[in-house]
Amino acid sequence: MARLSSAQAKSEMPHDAVVRRSLSILGATGSIGKNTLDLVSRTPDAFEIIALTAQNSVAELAESAKRVGARLAVIGNERQYGELKSLLSGTGIKVAAGPTAVVAAAAEPADCVMAAIVGAAGLEPTFEAVRQGRRLALANKECLVSAGAVFMAEVARTGAELLPVDSEHSAALQVVGNVEPASIEKLTLTASGGPFRTWDEEQLARATPEEALRHPNWSMGAKVTIDSATLMNKGLELIEAYHLFPVNADQLGVVVHPQSIVHCLVSFTDGSVIAQLACPDMRTPIALSLSWPQRMTTPTKKLDLVALGSLTFEAPDEKRFPALDLAREALRRGATAPAVLNAANEVAVEAFLARRIPFPAIAQIVEQGLDGGESRGLIRSEGGLKGILNVDAEARQLAHSLLDRYV
Amino acid sequence: MARLSSAQAKSEMPHDAVVRRSLSILGATGSIGKNTLDLVSRTPDAFEIIALTAQNSVAELAESAKRVGARLAVIGNERQYGELKSLLSGTGIKVAAGPTAVVAAAAEPADCVMAAIVGAAGLEPTFEAVRQGRRLALANKECLVSAGAVFMAEVARTGAELLPVDSEHSAALQVVGNVEPASIEKLTLTASGGPFRTWDEEQLARATPEEALRHPNWSMGAKVTIDSATLMNKGLELIEAYHLFPVNADQLGVVVHPQSIVHCLVSFTDGSVIAQLACPDMRTPIALSLSWPQRMTTPTKKLDLVALGSLTFEAPDEKRFPALDLAREALRRGATAPAVLNAANEVAVEAFLARRIPFPAIAQIVEQGLDGGESRGLIRSEGGLKGILNVDAEARQLAHSLLDRYV
Repeated sequence: MARLSSAQAKSEMPHDAVVRRSLSILGATGSIGKNTLDLVSRTPDAFEIIALTAQNSVAELAESAKRVGARLAVIGNERQYGELKSLLSGTGIKVAAGPTAVVAAAAEPADCVMAAIVGAAGLEPTFEAVRQGRRLALANKECLVSAGAVFMAEVARTGAELLPVDSEHSAALQVVGNVEPASIEKLTLTASGGPFRTWDEEQLARATPEEALRHPNWSMGAKVTIDSATLMNKGLELIEAYHLFPVNADQLGVVVHPQSIVHCLVSFTDGSVIAQLACPDMRTPIALSLSWPQRMTTPTKKLDLVALGSLTFEAPDEKRFPALDLAREALRRGATAPAVLNAANEVAVEAFLARRIPFPAIAQIVEQGLDGGESRGLIRSEGGLKGILNVDAEARQLAHSLLDRYV
Repeated sequence: MARLSSAQAKSEMPHDAVVRRSLSILGATGSIGKNTLDLVSRTPDAFEIIALTAQNSVAELAESAKRVGARLAVIGNERQYGELKSLLSGTGIKVAAGPTAVVAAAAEPADCVMAAIVGAAGLEPTFEAVRQGRRLALANKECLVSAGAVFMAEVARTGAELLPVDSEHSAALQVVGNVEPASIEKLTLTASGGPFRTWDEEQLARATPEEALRHPNWSMGAKVTIDSATLMNKGLELIEAYHLFPVNADQLGVVVHPQSIVHCLVSFTDGSVIAQLACPDMRTPIALSLSWPQRMTTPTKKLDLVALGSLTFEAPDEKRFPALDLAREALRRGATAPAVLNAANEVAVEAFLARRIPFPAIAQIVEQGLDGGESRGLIRSEGGLKGILNVDAEARQLAHSLLDRYV
């Protein structure tokens, strides 16, 4: 057995041996960024912070940059350059502003870049970190959903190391590790089912943004919380998993697991299923992306199965939650179809949050976006990141035009 | 991320690529032996059978040896030599009989030895396979329970590869793999709770062997089924896990999980818990021990969490099932205490099956055996396998004398 003899192992147990790593955080004031900074603050000797970026939250960015001793702070919104400069004057922390400066921050030499800018805005800075061949802790879903093939090709070209920060993909990484792809039969992501798991169609038709934002288990940003309510979040994750792991689309499954304790299960040809479990806390996958293949110590709540009592599982209801199959459909159509799906979904979610459309219309607009995109020639070969960005813009335009039907 | 690019991985998925291995099966007519032969029969190209042994089931041994084309068949009971010889005459299969011949069978050159002789009788042949530096698929519990330190020292000396066949330890192996021991916080074995999980003390006092043999999930031999009913099986597994994995005794836990789907959970410092799940079928851990680090394809039932609906967990009731803490106590006392525990338990289980003692007396005899063994000097440094065998014999004698109180 490939292990230390027990005597040897028991006497040689070292303490946390995480090597000091330099780290940049793109999107430092969002949910993932804040949790990353929380972990960094707890083990200050383990990390040297190179760059922090934020889009609008200038005060919080400045505060964080001072607290962790960042070398560079970048604000995306150029109009806040002056304020950032004044907040950080005399600290020795360099400042910059604007989208180009955010991309430049991603290119700063660092052992690891936490890519936590939400939405399509994260594409270019994240791609830049891949281009530099960095270790990339990837929290932005759109990179793999909209531009998966382009991203993975660049990862292969530059030797960048891609570590997913999603709890489900982080779980899958821990299980799939270096196993023989042929021994994998199925990769199953779990879905909490969201706040509307038990709601009927009539209730769904009247669901408000406030209700949709009440996620039973996770505290996350608004976009991803709404995506959890529609199950589109799980659909996007299926697309990500397809790019991250050596499985075909028909080997990917979803099971609803309301407790959000089991995050992913991998089934093997011999009947074994290996699963990762954890209390819902993003600091666990974040820590893994920072320390892998080692593990950090985190202050997260320890899993207590006896206290939980039971873990339940049910099949997703594809009729009430059509988003899941729309994502599979985009994967089937291939090429830029997932980018079209994602763009239409972002527009629809925004419209739902602004009370312009009812909850069930989110999936309808995505479906119409996919079909309309197909007939307008938006589903085509990727053509690099630029090509993806063009499709994204056109698909948004299309989705916006679809919104008018609901006004 | 240390993975194949998805395009590469998806195009290179090979079929089952298990290298043809030579295999001997010690205890070929028991539950594990039969399941091993079942797997071998399904993939005849993957294995070349060297030796099969059995204690008494001469007809079945001869039949199996012919079916898989074994080179050697050995019957432990010397009085059946004549019958084995006549059953296999003209087949070209060599025959032998007696305990020494069983040990010699273990020494026959083979890539892997399945050590599936139940009880203390398995100690010497299994130790012989370790001495030869073989890959050892270890189904015999006593080797690690009674002689753990001696076995592990010999494994380290000869470079033998020890692959546990127990479902719980096989699960742990798959999870612990090559992880950093310092990142492991806890290793939790699951217990079904056995047929008496919900019985009160009065019911337990009247439990019959027939009732104890009705295990809810597993079809196993009589000894291990009774051990499941007392929870001593889990206690013995704690001792095995202590020797197999880089954990201290206080890092080992047990949780009752009546469905027997989750077999082991390993908790890490970052909050992650990795678990192995499978439908209860010994062919899954057997297959793993034969193919590790690759995986075979087995005909076992696929896990269907949606059909199961829920997995439940509860704390073991140490008052109704004192065997668990007795095993921990033996681990605390160290040296030959686990051998004394095991010997007393074997005697007590036999007596219960023969209706000589009531069910709760099994744990009582084990407790009295441990205490009596201590005062008689049976708990001492191991002194090699011979020393262990002496302690085992003396502890059995002691346990037999304790039985008289119940007659």
